[in-house]
Amino acid sequence: MMTITKPLTDLDIANNATLKPITEIARAAGIPEDALEQFGRYKGKIDPNKIPGRPDGKVVLVTATSPTPAGEGKTTVTIGLADALKQLNQKVMVALREPSLGPVFGIKGGATGGGFAQVLPMEDINLHFNGDFHAITTANNLVSAMIDNHIHQGNELKIDPRRIIWKRVLDMNDRALRKVVVGLGGPTQGVPREDGFDITVASEIMAVFCLATSLKDLKERLSNMLIGYTYDRRPVFVKDLGIEGALTLILKEAFKPNIVQTIEGTPALVHGGPFANIAHGCNSIVATQTARKMADIVVTEAGFGADLGAEKFMDIKARVGHFRPDAVVVVTTIRALKMHGGVDKSNLTQENVHALLLGIKNLERHIETIRNFGIEPIVAVNRFVSDTEAEICTLMEWAKKNDIRIARTNVWAEGGKGGLDLAKQVLEVLDQPKQFAPLYDVTEPIEQKITTIVQKVYGGIGAVFTDQAKRQLKQIEENGWSDLPICMAKTQYSLSDNPKLLGRPEGFTITVREIIPKLGAGFLVCLTGDIMTMPGLPKEPAALRMDVDEKGDAVGLF
Amino acid sequence: MMTITKPLTDLDIANNATLKPITEIARAAGIPEDALEQFGRYKGKIDPNKIPGRPDGKVVLVTATSPTPAGEGKTTVTIGLADALKQLNQKVMVALREPSLGPVFGIKGGATGGGFAQVLPMEDINLHFNGDFHAITTANNLVSAMIDNHIHQGNELKIDPRRIIWKRVLDMNDRALRKVVVGLGGPTQGVPREDGFDITVASEIMAVFCLATSLKDLKERLSNMLIGYTYDRRPVFVKDLGIEGALTLILKEAFKPNIVQTIEGTPALVHGGPFANIAHGCNSIVATQTARKMADIVVTEAGFGADLGAEKFMDIKARVGHFRPDAVVVVTTIRALKMHGGVDKSNLTQENVHALLLGIKNLERHIETIRNFGIEPIVAVNRFVSDTEAEICTLMEWAKKNDIRIARTNVWAEGGKGGLDLAKQVLEVLDQPKQFAPLYDVTEPIEQKITTIVQKVYGGIGAVFTDQAKRQLKQIEENGWSDLPICMAKTQYSLSDNPKLLGRPEGFTITVREIIPKLGAGFLVCLTGDIMTMPGLPKEPAALRMDVDEKGDAVGLF
Repeated sequence: MMTITKPLTDLDIANNATLKPITEIARAAGIPEDALEQFGRYKGKIDPNKIPGRPDGKVVLVTATSPTPAGEGKTTVTIGLADALKQLNQKVMVALREPSLGPVFGIKGGATGGGFAQVLPMEDINLHFNGDFHAITTANNLVSAMIDNHIHQGNELKIDPRRIIWKRVLDMNDRALRKVVVGLGGPTQGVPREDGFDITVASEIMAVFCLATSLKDLKERLSNMLIGYTYDRRPVFVKDLGIEGALTLILKEAFKPNIVQTIEGTPALVHGGPFANIAHGCNSIVATQTARKMADIVVTEAGFGADLGAEKFMDIKARVGHFRPDAVVVVTTIRALKMHGGVDKSNLTQENVHALLLGIKNLERHIETIRNFGIEPIVAVNRFVSDTEAEICTLMEWAKKNDIRIARTNVWAEGGKGGLDLAKQVLEVLDQPKQFAPLYDVTEPIEQKITTIVQKVYGGIGAVFTDQAKRQLKQIEENGWSDLPICMAKTQYSLSDNPKLLGRPEGFTITVREIIPKLGAGFLVCLTGDIMTMPGLPKEPAALRMDVDEKGDAVGLF
Repeated sequence: MMTITKPLTDLDIANNATLKPITEIARAAGIPEDALEQFGRYKGKIDPNKIPGRPDGKVVLVTATSPTPAGEGKTTVTIGLADALKQLNQKVMVALREPSLGPVFGIKGGATGGGFAQVLPMEDINLHFNGDFHAITTANNLVSAMIDNHIHQGNELKIDPRRIIWKRVLDMNDRALRKVVVGLGGPTQGVPREDGFDITVASEIMAVFCLATSLKDLKERLSNMLIGYTYDRRPVFVKDLGIEGALTLILKEAFKPNIVQTIEGTPALVHGGPFANIAHGCNSIVATQTARKMADIVVTEAGFGADLGAEKFMDIKARVGHFRPDAVVVVTTIRALKMHGGVDKSNLTQENVHALLLGIKNLERHIETIRNFGIEPIVAVNRFVSDTEAEICTLMEWAKKNDIRIARTNVWAEGGKGGLDLAKQVLEVLDQPKQFAPLYDVTEPIEQKITTIVQKVYGGIGAVFTDQAKRQLKQIEENGWSDLPICMAKTQYSLSDNPKLLGRPEGFTITVREIIPKLGAGFLVCLTGDIMTMPGLPKEPAALRMDVDEKGDAVGLF
């Protein structure tokens, strides 16, 4: 038995874990030797074209109630569930998003799970990993350099520098780059214009990367990305610049899914990571589909709560990838539900059954959403030490009374063992027949598709459109871009578009401020509020605590 | 025999080469298994701390006459010489710089050698390689984000936004980023100020990375980087921001040297690539020293001609790394010497012995330079098909008459076989005693160090200083930063600071316009002209020809 003098951090636990060589993990997963490229001893890339065909595995989607600062542990449950399924002798794989590098230096917190439910090596995955995001940054910024060079060299396409919608990116939290003026310094230094930098995960290339089903499809999507308009308002695409080949070349190695392992040795494909607000917030289709070629069950997650991540998973990712989720887990915590019931963050350790019952309405709404897609969800109650028996019982009884599948998980502390009950229920659901269908048809009018999401997912009355959104809607229709799925950009904290309305707000409308066509990704982004596409650093950035020790190991990463 | 219907490109030759697994290359080089991390099948990184100690190998530096558009093939000769030494049963390794990604999309031309003297896989090395430059870009831009965040959050250090000398970087040819204004958009978006982007190879972090002798030294140097001045003109360093630990963490994996192979299977460490003008233009010290721990002979190169690259190799890199070059090869071509003798680029295929004799004076000056360091150089005449017997004879006779070692090379067409004569002469020189010493002592006054370089390397009279340079000189002395080596930033095309004066100009002075302290790298940069630190793209960028074929292979990369 360990004598614990201070609480273990995720990095401590990760550093104490014994990793297997990635060659061994890959071999056990049935990956042919020539399909694996090692990146160091514990990471690799897989060539999807070298994986032999077999019946595709089933997909388990892990989503959550509306996120709160209390934390739900969605990634942790995703990993713990996979480890539990492995303990039950299932052939299982995890498919996760890659963490963004920028936020690592800002506010503490990674995206590799926690406690004894982590993917490893967490240090490498949270830093440069296998260079995928760097490749996406490079591709994105080549587009910008080519646009400015085109204008500088004579502007044959007559691109209006005031109507360029393509922005530069960096994988860095850097607020000073949100709004910049480039091209200053006189005639030899380019043409001055307003521009801005987004964080890399907000690049359309990230969304394209995650939705492309093959290298050929990747190139096709890249070529269709809209970069701006001419002086006479005609759209200009990447294909007009003629660089879709170069962009594909920049991305071709990154496009191969990365393989790592959980603490318990379950293979994990960690690949791609688009924003869950202005993009669809899921790992790459190529990783999910590659995992399905090797495992009977693939456990994957989608960003934020079920209103955003799960909706987009089913209406965008599953539609493009031609698959369906075979089971959906909705992660929640007693703490988070109490916050949705009105408790302040500082009082969450106090028992409060009344607030819990109010907060359960948020969970209830997300359950209805999943049912609207034709799937019966399983609620996972992710354990925190402050949970009281009375609270737990209240939640379990509510579930029983309403005929809702529910399981307690304790994966942070116990790893896969803490997810066995959930895993058993998932296996039961996987065996049942289901009637999955997306919520809308892409050929429906745009307003109708949006209204469907507001009503069937958010529980609101409908959508109202600003004048700007109406103008953009008209322009999109005129250009023939209407028949695309909708990618809602809404606050994750509320089912409504007001982040302060926790729980289950009712009777609200959603205001659509802007509709932005993303023609490479193949969706229409509906902005319903100020969406931050370039975060800033806090007053005390996490970078200040980071270091390398004398052995060359990371310090203070988490 | 091959039937050649059109000339083979470097990419054709590279694609036709049969590569050995990097594990095999490493094993043959005596690298312990646990010191090698594979990056795919044909690339790796080496942990220098896991290489067993033994007597250090000797160092052969390859430099050249002043570069011309005709091309000298310095990297090609470096690789071919190593392959030739291997054919002569020497235990040899190559140590080269990594190519910068940005220029790859601009004007055709890589930095991985050519013909049958290349390092492979050229496609990967010329694209993201093992992510080193991306890590350097990230570290550089974290410094910028932390500076702007510090000012935004209250500016406790009282940094003057007008006196920040630290710039952002991207590994991209992007002229529109040379001069920008950041922090626009109001009080929540940072503080507006003038800024600019350099290309990544111009980052001081690149120079630091290449001069650091250990991870500890890397951190120390990073902490000493000067980022600007306060309102009352006090210097502000990275250590004042407290992020040297985070920067070291970002760089720690990149800091391990990369191993690849030549077409003939000679192990090559390709690591780091600072600009040869505003920095010292050599691969990393850690790669050179790691190679010396494994090979009896390490063949390496330095950027541009001997006046820049070799001078900095000996006065900066060798001084910091506590080693000496044991032999120096000066690469030249008949074509380049004819250009130095006044022939226009369009007439280089015509025999012109008279011009050749005039141009030889450029070679002569570089030979004197190497002798000034106490080393007897070997001239390598790198073959081009247009060379005539009369021209070759003229050059060989001149060398014989002046008692200069000379060897003909034909490595582009023949690989190592075309470098055997050169290799034999290198082996002779390695056996001879030599009296190497840097040209100056760092404790000499700055003006004196500069004058020494102008007189003993460029063949000029002396240096003149602009008023700005004089002010900066005074400031450097007041701050106690004088005792550092000099890093001259001068045009590579001429021995003087006027790029149009080819051959061997005489009686000139060098105008020092600015003196910039690089306190992490540990040198004083002397700007003697407009030095371009962010290239632009041409009217027809190479990116337009790039693609990926149906097999997923690169097209049009070179």
